[in-house]
Amino acid sequence: MSLEKGFVHVYTGNGKGKSTAAFGLAMRAKGAGLKVIIIQFLKGQKYSEHESFERLGIDYELYGTEKFIVGEPGEDVKKLCKEGLERAKRAFQEGYDVVILDEANVAVYLKAMELEDLIDVVKSKPEHVELVITGRYAPQELIELADLVTEMREVKHYYQKGIQARRGIEM
Amino acid sequence: MSLEKGFVHVYTGNGKGKSTAAFGLAMRAKGAGLKVIIIQFLKGQKYSEHESFERLGIDYELYGTEKFIVGEPGEDVKKLCKEGLERAKRAFQEGYDVVILDEANVAVYLKAMELEDLIDVVKSKPEHVELVITGRYAPQELIELADLVTEMREVKHYYQKGIQARRGIEM
Repeated sequence: MSLEKGFVHVYTGNGKGKSTAAFGLAMRAKGAGLKVIIIQFLKGQKYSEHESFERLGIDYELYGTEKFIVGEPGEDVKKLCKEGLERAKRAFQEGYDVVILDEANVAVYLKAMELEDLIDVVKSKPEHVELVITGRYAPQELIELADLVTEMREVKHYYQKGIQARRGIEM
Repeated sequence: MSLEKGFVHVYTGNGKGKSTAAFGLAMRAKGAGLKVIIIQFLKGQKYSEHESFERLGIDYELYGTEKFIVGEPGEDVKKLCKEGLERAKRAFQEGYDVVILDEANVAVYLKAMELEDLIDVVKSKPEHVELVITGRYAPQELIELADLVTEMREVKHYYQKGIQARRGIEM
C-alpha cells in the first residue's frame, strides 16, 4: 500500500509528546504496511524506542552526537544536520511513504541547521510522502508551509517537581 | 525491569496526537521491557496500530462498539465503559507497568462513563504504575489529580480543507 496524498505535519510546543506522537504515527503507518524512516537530529544515543523500531522494521538513523549542546553548536553537529537533511531527500527517492525529521525544529533554533535547508527539503517532498517534523520552536516559515500543526502545550509537568527522565517513559 | 515510581499523564486538547503520543509511549515502554496494556474506550473497530501492538506484544482491549455515538450513549456503551475501567483495576494487580485508558476523557464527556468511576481508578493506581489517559475535554478534577498534563492544541489542520481520515496515518 502507499498513500494517495501525503501532508506536512509539525508537532511543536513546550509540552510532552511531540516526538512520541511522531513515533506513534510511525507505528500506525508501519502497521498499515507503509515504509517509514525516522531521521533523528541532535540525538546520538540509543533510546528504548529504538528497540521497538527495530522489531517493527521502522528504519531510523541518528544524526547527532552524544554530547549535549551548550552555546553555539560545533561544526560536527552542523555537518550531521546537513547529512540528515540529505538523507531525507534520498528517502524521498527510495519509496518511503512516511519520513520523520525528529527535532529538526530544535536544530534550526540552535542554529545547527539552516532554516532554508529544512524548507528546501519540505518543498522537495513528493506528493505521496507524509513528512513529519518535530521539536519545540517551530519556525514561522515552516508553520506556514505545513498542512497540519499541533502545539503540545505543557499544562502541568512533574519535571517542575524535580523528577528526572525515566528509562522506558521519557527515554 | 519495572518503574520505581509511576505517574498519571493526561493528553487532552483539540489537536492531533493525543492517542498517538500514548501509543508512542507504549512502544517506548515496551522497548524498555515494561509490560503495557492499552484499554480503548468508545472504539470498537481495528485500526492499523493494532497490527503493530500485536507485533510488539503490547496488550490492547477494545471496550467500544462499532457504532458512532450520537446523542445520549446507550446502555451497551455504558456497560462497556464500566467493564473497561474494571479491566484497568485488574491490570493494576496483574503486574502491568503502563496502563493506557485511551479516549476515557471523551467517554466521560459523552456521559458514557461516570467521572467518579474514572477518578476511582486513578486513585487506586499502585505506586509503580504509569497511568495514561487520553481524549479531548479532560475533566478538571482529573487534571488536578494528574502529575503531567499536555494539551494538544490544533494550530492548523487539513480536516479544515475537507480531507478525510486516511488509513495508516489517522486510522
